[in-house]
Amino acid sequence: MHFTSERRLDDGVVEREFTLGEIPGTLWTPGSAASAPLILMAHNNGLSKGEPRLVARARHTAANGYAVATIDAAGCGDRPRSAADQQARADLRRAMQAGEPVDEIFESFIGPLVEKAAPEWRTTLDALLALPEIGGPVGYSGWTALGIRLAVTEPRIAAAGFFAGGYVPRAQREEARQVTVPLLFLLQWDDEGNPRQRALDLFDAFGTKEKTLHANMGGHVGTPWFELEDGGRFYDRHLK
Amino acid sequence: MHFTSERRLDDGVVEREFTLGEIPGTLWTPGSAASAPLILMAHNNGLSKGEPRLVARARHTAANGYAVATIDAAGCGDRPRSAADQQARADLRRAMQAGEPVDEIFESFIGPLVEKAAPEWRTTLDALLALPEIGGPVGYSGWTALGIRLAVTEPRIAAAGFFAGGYVPRAQREEARQVTVPLLFLLQWDDEGNPRQRALDLFDAFGTKEKTLHANMGGHVGTPWFELEDGGRFYDRHLK
Repeated sequence: MHFTSERRLDDGVVEREFTLGEIPGTLWTPGSAASAPLILMAHNNGLSKGEPRLVARARHTAANGYAVATIDAAGCGDRPRSAADQQARADLRRAMQAGEPVDEIFESFIGPLVEKAAPEWRTTLDALLALPEIGGPVGYSGWTALGIRLAVTEPRIAAAGFFAGGYVPRAQREEARQVTVPLLFLLQWDDEGNPRQRALDLFDAFGTKEKTLHANMGGHVGTPWFELEDGGRFYDRHLK
Repeated sequence: MHFTSERRLDDGVVEREFTLGEIPGTLWTPGSAASAPLILMAHNNGLSKGEPRLVARARHTAANGYAVATIDAAGCGDRPRSAADQQARADLRRAMQAGEPVDEIFESFIGPLVEKAAPEWRTTLDALLALPEIGGPVGYSGWTALGIRLAVTEPRIAAAGFFAGGYVPRAQREEARQVTVPLLFLLQWDDEGNPRQRALDLFDAFGTKEKTLHANMGGHVGTPWFELEDGGRFYDRHLK
């Protein structure tokens, strides 16, 4: 893990860019030198690690005493995309605009995206836990499909917060029953890209007994700020 | 309003029993002398004001700086019940044990119970706001059907937390669209007495744009303690 830049933010949080082989990432750590619990924060559908809403969540979480890391995994963010992925994304936009079914198109690019991203997140987790300023335990926050895959394959993850979850690949819908860590599932009631009933069905399917659903009005990007604070208390209960 | 007893709890909260005409009630106020915001706390289906889970919620909420009041309204708690109400409750138990439909039976006693209880809660609110130690604004917590009626008829209520809501009388299901105050709707995912889909439909129906759903696993009495703390922050956002 090579750190390529470092800046200290107003609230003492240290924000560092890193590379780990081909994987670019960002790590936020609280100002104090103590060994912090870690939250892996992934943006839905592999959007860029530099996306402002993710960065705002990460900085706020780090200021609360967590190390927070995100990466652009294979095919995600600014990493090169396969011709097939690019075609699928173009097909998806066209189908959504035309009001056509999108399941098979989602499946064709989100399924492989999760398959390729998960091992890179695990490699990153290994490297992060080797840093003296990161102690664990480990939480996960964000992209539902990737989070399901990580929660069922990575025993070091102790609690997870998932967002949206209307479209999740078949493989992860199956795996949902194997998720047994405490879960906070965050849903926007009128999320244009995430059918509500499917998200509710997914919440119902998770195997864990300690799962909580939070739903708020509005579309995909309308999550109220207080949910970030509620999420913080969820992680505090399980990781601190 | 006549206070008939007073005790000071360990955390400084003052717990007073009162009567207001025929209405018996309990008022909890924080130890400090400041003019506190008020939360009206009602137990589902008019259960007794002395029910231990309600008392625990009330004491915790008062310790957080709120005046909290509850009453046994007409037909509720230990107040006399009409022969018709008693018959309906007996019919309900029998029907639920036999797995028969219960809508009409619920309607026949919960409908009138809300009709009779709501004016007594408003009378109590008048008396409470005349006390120097209570300042407002006013929140509501608990029984969904009564809360809907109060929220649409009582402009002094500024925020409401509702619990369960699977069985709500027809009149209040209609009124739900007129509820415009900020709302926290708390649902137990496997509440044996409150069908989940109906509760979700009711949440969808509320007219307010600022509504949040929290759902947790388990039956009617299984709400995790952290929901009381989440509820406290909801009221803090709107009443403090």
